[in-house]
Amino acid sequence: MSKKVWFAGVSLAIGMGYVAGALAQAKPEVLVKQRQAAMTLQGKYYGPLAAMAQGKAPYNKDTVERNAEYLSVLDKMPWDGFAESTKDEKSVKTAALPAIWKDGDKFKQAQKNFQDEVSKLVQVSKGGDEAAVKAQIGAVGKACGACHGDFREKQQ
Amino acid sequence: MSKKVWFAGVSLAIGMGYVAGALAQAKPEVLVKQRQAAMTLQGKYYGPLAAMAQGKAPYNKDTVERNAEYLSVLDKMPWDGFAESTKDEKSVKTAALPAIWKDGDKFKQAQKNFQDEVSKLVQVSKGGDEAAVKAQIGAVGKACGACHGDFREKQQ
Repeated sequence: MSKKVWFAGVSLAIGMGYVAGALAQAKPEVLVKQRQAAMTLQGKYYGPLAAMAQGKAPYNKDTVERNAEYLSVLDKMPWDGFAESTKDEKSVKTAALPAIWKDGDKFKQAQKNFQDEVSKLVQVSKGGDEAAVKAQIGAVGKACGACHGDFREKQQ
Repeated sequence: MSKKVWFAGVSLAIGMGYVAGALAQAKPEVLVKQRQAAMTLQGKYYGPLAAMAQGKAPYNKDTVERNAEYLSVLDKMPWDGFAESTKDEKSVKTAALPAIWKDGDKFKQAQKNFQDEVSKLVQVSKGGDEAAVKAQIGAVGKACGACHGDFREKQQ
């Protein structure tokens, strides 16, 4: 396949603004949408674990292991979306508080805390100690809550 | 720490509807939001690779490797969001076409095709053959496009 034909094929397949979006400085509203997407998926995969930890859903080791692995990737994704350029973004509803940009070090520490707790969950979920897994699910939830407490508007 | 205190702590930390959401049959609008979130993040991490493949951004091996790994997790996430219950969902804007539920086997095959191409990208991105990596980025884009062509409303 000639180079020209190949590029034409690629252009066709990905003609959905992805390239343009990647090349331009990402727009603030895109950054907000992407970071919210990461949070949405963290909720999707954390929710069932929280239910298990609280005894409200049956414990399922496979689900915990899988979701912990997913969370250990998702926990890397929101943070570059909190760019300075999004500080005054009004076109997308966001609950991000000014403290994110006023106290960047503390915000970074909260991210690291969350990632560390998720890493521990990945490790412990591979073992057979259900009580330890449930305790660690709780620790992850506290890390979520600690960051939300400082850096997110209170939810109604 | 007593069990009671611990559960109270967990409940506090995760009092954001996650547990309720996980316990209840997930609402159609939640499923749509979650699957769209997965697509949004696929776009976030695929976009820069497409730009590299087209020669519109400098090639960066580390970024390709990282994003390929991210995509190999994200490519598992949208599909359970296309539940039957979302077929007639009107409260959230969705471009999902009825073909998703009319031709489920073809839709599953398109998912598998995408996942296979991403897996190949993960492998090839670990090597030093830039041309092969770029070709495989194109193959991933074609898999995105093929599924969108059959199962998503045309984008304006």
